[in-house]
Amino acid sequence: MKFSVVVEVSLRTGIADPEGATIERALPALGFEGISSVRAGKCFRLNVEASSEAEALERAIALADRLLSNPVIEQSTARIEATA
Amino acid sequence: MKFSVVVEVSLRTGIADPEGATIERALPALGFEGISSVRAGKCFRLNVEASSEAEALERAIALADRLLSNPVIEQSTARIEATA
Repeated sequence: MKFSVVVEVSLRTGIADPEGATIERALPALGFEGISSVRAGKCFRLNVEASSEAEALERAIALADRLLSNPVIEQSTARIEATA
Repeated sequence: MKFSVVVEVSLRTGIADPEGATIERALPALGFEGISSVRAGKCFRLNVEASSEAEALERAIALADRLLSNPVIEQSTARIEATA
């Protein structure tokens, strides 16, 4: 079966996020009030051929840890979006 | 109320995604088979102060369209992750 998987790669808690901080600083000048704790990350959508949802997620996380992220400073989460 | 919102910015369908294509090409050499249609994008997590979920989503999408994405080639989706 083919699963549509979304992998989110984000900085670990405590790691400085200059991109998020810059966005947050720019918000008041653009008229956006009441928005805080902006954190920036990456998102990947992929189709994974697997026999079960659990296997698809496991493969996506293995891929994220080896190719899509730097596990020292980033964490990866994966979720199934749809079954194709 | 404070809502934890996740904004995903991805390239529109039909727009070339060289980052995703490069990842996809690298997969077989790393031993990952059966993974296709890789698309790369950005993810932002933010806390939005709003009176309802609908208002929080609307503000997050407005912000995404003005500051986080290029609406000509990218589309933004937002979802509520939690209520703080």
